[in-house]
Amino acid sequence: MADEQLRRFRSSIDNIDAALILLLAERFKITEDVGRHKAQQGLPAADPEREKQQIARLRELSSAANLDPTFSEAFLRLVIDEVIRRHERTADQP
Amino acid sequence: MADEQLRRFRSSIDNIDAALILLLAERFKITEDVGRHKAQQGLPAADPEREKQQIARLRELSSAANLDPTFSEAFLRLVIDEVIRRHERTADQP
Repeated sequence: MADEQLRRFRSSIDNIDAALILLLAERFKITEDVGRHKAQQGLPAADPEREKQQIARLRELSSAANLDPTFSEAFLRLVIDEVIRRHERTADQP
Repeated sequence: MADEQLRRFRSSIDNIDAALILLLAERFKITEDVGRHKAQQGLPAADPEREKQQIARLRELSSAANLDPTFSEAFLRLVIDEVIRRHERTADQP
C-alpha cells in the first residue's frame, strides 16, 4: 500500500510526465513546420552541422542539470528518430 | 544558410529542449527521493501495478496530444531504465 508521502511523490511525477508529453507534442508540431518550410524553400531535409550543435548544447545543459549525458543523447536520438519517422509518414501521404 | 524563419523555429526547438532537460532533471530528483523513501519504509523497489497505471495514463495523454503511443512508451521505457540505472549506481556507493 502506498503511503501519503509516496502518493505525493507520485503525483509530482505524474504532473511532470504530463508536462513532458505536452512539450514533446509542441516540439513535434514545430519540427513538422520546419519540414514544410524546408520543402517550400528547397532546403535539404538533413543538417548535420545543426545536429552537432544540438548534441553539444544538450551535453552542456545536461551537465548543468546533473543529468547523465549518455541518457540525454539517447533521449535526443529517440526524439530525432521520431521526427524522421514522422517526416517519412508525411511524405508517404498522397 | 538558415533563413530567418528557420532560425525562429530552431530557437523554439532549443527553448523546448532546455525545458525538457530541466523537467527530466526534476523528475529524477523526485524518483531519487522515492527510492530513499521506499528504502526507509521497507517498501519494495519495484511496483508493477504502478508501472501499468503509468503506461495506461501515458497512452491516454499521448493520444490526446496526437503523439504516437509507441514513441511515448519508448520514451517512458528510456526514463524508467535511467531511474533503475541511477538507483543501482546509488546502491553501489559505500
